[in-house]
Amino acid sequence: MFISFEGIDFCGKSTQVELLRDYLLEQKKIVHLIREPGGTEISEKIREILLDKKNNAMVMETELFLFSASRAQLVREVIRPYLQKGYYVISDRFHDSSTAYQGFGRGLSVDAIIKIHNLAIGETLPDITFFIDIPNEVAIERKLKKSHSDLDRIEVSDNTFYERVREGYLYLSKQEKRFRVIDGRQSIENINKQIIDEIKSLESNK
Amino acid sequence: MFISFEGIDFCGKSTQVELLRDYLLEQKKIVHLIREPGGTEISEKIREILLDKKNNAMVMETELFLFSASRAQLVREVIRPYLQKGYYVISDRFHDSSTAYQGFGRGLSVDAIIKIHNLAIGETLPDITFFIDIPNEVAIERKLKKSHSDLDRIEVSDNTFYERVREGYLYLSKQEKRFRVIDGRQSIENINKQIIDEIKSLESNK
Repeated sequence: MFISFEGIDFCGKSTQVELLRDYLLEQKKIVHLIREPGGTEISEKIREILLDKKNNAMVMETELFLFSASRAQLVREVIRPYLQKGYYVISDRFHDSSTAYQGFGRGLSVDAIIKIHNLAIGETLPDITFFIDIPNEVAIERKLKKSHSDLDRIEVSDNTFYERVREGYLYLSKQEKRFRVIDGRQSIENINKQIIDEIKSLESNK
Repeated sequence: MFISFEGIDFCGKSTQVELLRDYLLEQKKIVHLIREPGGTEISEKIREILLDKKNNAMVMETELFLFSASRAQLVREVIRPYLQKGYYVISDRFHDSSTAYQGFGRGLSVDAIIKIHNLAIGETLPDITFFIDIPNEVAIERKLKKSHSDLDRIEVSDNTFYERVREGYLYLSKQEKRFRVIDGRQSIENINKQIIDEIKSLESNK
């Protein structure tokens, strides 16, 4: 099973990825965690370029292509082989992030982005996608607790940017059956429980 | 005016780029040379990933996206500003290289590549493109003179790959009015003369 986690920065998805991994391991499943961008030797080099604050001249088209390059490598070198071996692959961000961030956030054509996804990932779509939704104010509050120098190139974006990204995710939630919207203001334990219930329900329907 | 040079590796185009630059400078023109991939700080970092032989696990989709990322940055940061200032911009390789190498050479969908070009370069197409054509045997001969350790990740590709790339260029020559096919087996001086004649003819028709 291929599971992706999505949401604006500081929504808490990385914590949930780890809790789901722990649960699956307790169930004696084999699990492989990935995070985007990155996850292969080549993708990690691309990640460095993408997140380095020195690269603030980067145009949105370049950003989209770099994410797609990293993802295309990850799909073929890691995700497909692990899925074939029966692993649960859990990805902290996947292609929906590009639709939300570079499409809705930056304003690139969503149609063009979808065509690029076709080439980058082909048929390798997540079976289920958890969108951990938090209002922009909550994200800002959490962001302010982090020192500015610890933020990466994308995290330093202005707040209206995150508002547009969130709208992108809400749009995708309506379009894509695999989306599950989870209220990210709940306690960590409640969110985790909801996610496990969704996984159980998906498996019993298989 | 925006001029691009294309051809399989070892066709001699880099020499011709310099000779054309010298000619234009003699004519008191302002000229800016670029080479792909590269040409901006971000694009040079992408170039390193693309040409490093250690990255031999790179899949063709990743390769295409990295070239497109480098190009999108180059177009917006360098090519458009220089053209607006009245420069002659001469590019050693441009988007046709992706169509020929990743499309015809590696076998990716040429239609998909053309859609990616739309996003990467928009309306910034060369006014004229010189395809320096040499038969595969001539390329192999020239390649053998270079030490294997000096070849980059793409230059070490097998010979049938270059045959397909050349077919791609010949296809584009028929499709694109801006293409000029130059026989690369001629002397350097003759090729240079032919190129200058084409530039003069294009300018007198403007």
